[in-house]
Amino acid sequence: MFRKIDHIGIVTRDLEALKTLYRDVLEMEPAHEEVNEELGIKAALYPIGEVALEYIEPISDKAPLKNFLETRGEGIHHICFLVDDIEGTLKKLLDRGMRLIDKKPRMGANNKRIAFLHPKSMHGVLVELAQEA
Amino acid sequence: MFRKIDHIGIVTRDLEALKTLYRDVLEMEPAHEEVNEELGIKAALYPIGEVALEYIEPISDKAPLKNFLETRGEGIHHICFLVDDIEGTLKKLLDRGMRLIDKKPRMGANNKRIAFLHPKSMHGVLVELAQEA
Repeated sequence: MFRKIDHIGIVTRDLEALKTLYRDVLEMEPAHEEVNEELGIKAALYPIGEVALEYIEPISDKAPLKNFLETRGEGIHHICFLVDDIEGTLKKLLDRGMRLIDKKPRMGANNKRIAFLHPKSMHGVLVELAQEA
Repeated sequence: MFRKIDHIGIVTRDLEALKTLYRDVLEMEPAHEEVNEELGIKAALYPIGEVALEYIEPISDKAPLKNFLETRGEGIHHICFLVDDIEGTLKKLLDRGMRLIDKKPRMGANNKRIAFLHPKSMHGVLVELAQEA
């Protein structure tokens, strides 16, 4: 059902400080950076093997991640799994009683179609599914 | 510095319920299971691509994870990175001002030598380093 882990999403308060840590201490530069005004976030991607760490900083008070940051603090936010057939997977999960945040896929970053499962159905883990276009 | 992600550690309240979810809904069986009385945990490992999800249930009130479960609830606990030279990596990180939970590697599961970095040095993420024996 899950082909591989695409990325681990991590919420950070200060992406510039994070990039400094990665450059000066861990000797890594981001492979990709983006600012998404619509979602109110900026992000930096660090691939390690076949999985990327996606660090996200909310830059708008309306960003849903702002609330996560204020209540939980900085830390791991979600795991994204690559799937081959996102509609079929969502239908199967719904038929089997899983709660979905997105019943239909929507466009995410990097031209992927994405959908989130509800963490209550996944023992406290927020899971994103993604299918490459 | 980090060769690949070895596993993502996830704390769960009920490993049997978790295994039922994985078997009946996600169509996956654990590749490995273990009970470690000394650490007060039982665990099940689900490899997805080159990374495994390591689900851990504390089975003793003295398990350090028991406190995490009670204060944070079920969810993602740590990310483990494989390194080639764990002593050299720890020394480099310490020299560069990072806070370490383990200044020297100790034996972990699967015959790996492991050490944890302090989440305060990693923007809220608990990081484990592991070197294959």
